[in-house]
Amino acid sequence: MPGPRKLPTREELRTWREFVETTQALSTLLAARLYSDTGLSPGDYAVLLALSEATDNRLRSSELAAHIGWERSRLSHHLGRMQRRQLIRREECATDNRGADVVLEPTGSEAFHAATVPHLRAVRELFIDALTADQLAAAGDIAAALQAHLRGPRPTE
Amino acid sequence: MPGPRKLPTREELRTWREFVETTQALSTLLAARLYSDTGLSPGDYAVLLALSEATDNRLRSSELAAHIGWERSRLSHHLGRMQRRQLIRREECATDNRGADVVLEPTGSEAFHAATVPHLRAVRELFIDALTADQLAAAGDIAAALQAHLRGPRPTE
Repeated sequence: MPGPRKLPTREELRTWREFVETTQALSTLLAARLYSDTGLSPGDYAVLLALSEATDNRLRSSELAAHIGWERSRLSHHLGRMQRRQLIRREECATDNRGADVVLEPTGSEAFHAATVPHLRAVRELFIDALTADQLAAAGDIAAALQAHLRGPRPTE
Repeated sequence: MPGPRKLPTREELRTWREFVETTQALSTLLAARLYSDTGLSPGDYAVLLALSEATDNRLRSSELAAHIGWERSRLSHHLGRMQRRQLIRREECATDNRGADVVLEPTGSEAFHAATVPHLRAVRELFIDALTADQLAAAGDIAAALQAHLRGPRPTE
């Protein structure tokens, strides 16, 4: 078993760097495609997707922040811009500190639905089509293993 | 063969979403670890890494932008902040439009070297240790397949 201070081997690091650089390049390319196809940023799309899937198309801003993995301050600035574009609205709740309700607006719902087909087509072209069926299954396994590791208790070493 | 308008299946999309959400969560967690361990952001680290590996520890800003996958305007703002912290310096070149030379400063070199061990330890703990040897090999294969697809000619459909 590795000791607590053991560093990755050169080969492990090479794999890590290729993995992280490739997934970042893929995200950048998908973001550019999304924006040129639909005028939405990846942040816009993530917010609209989360609200589209939420009960009554509304979420507390704290829940939304947790859902899309953003700091609340970053989300708050972003929601201000989306509100000015009438994609969402915020309804203040005085009763607790979980933040305002964020509600999908009709303009936001339309923008999300119009973006879905071009975005999914880009996902297919840039990700699904790049991989064999075995590689796609392995990508799912890797995601599940990473997620279990990130969420689980730190291993004792 | 799929037609040009075919969308991903529900299962393919589920894999895609788990993959992209997990790799983003991993990046966020690594960025937080890097910052709390070393005071460097992932952008700082990427710039310092690229300059550390460059001949004479210097790169044209256009080459640096291409290397780390950023827009030149974003990089320019970031380099301004790094210059004020004396991590890098810029030397203007009047002769062409490939941008200033960006040069690693001694403070930047020290910061990079001090960050390397904690950062690599975090990569091992959060990524390498999460995966079996087969999964790690598959992650390398997936990255290579995605990269070849992103770089290669668009398939004719």
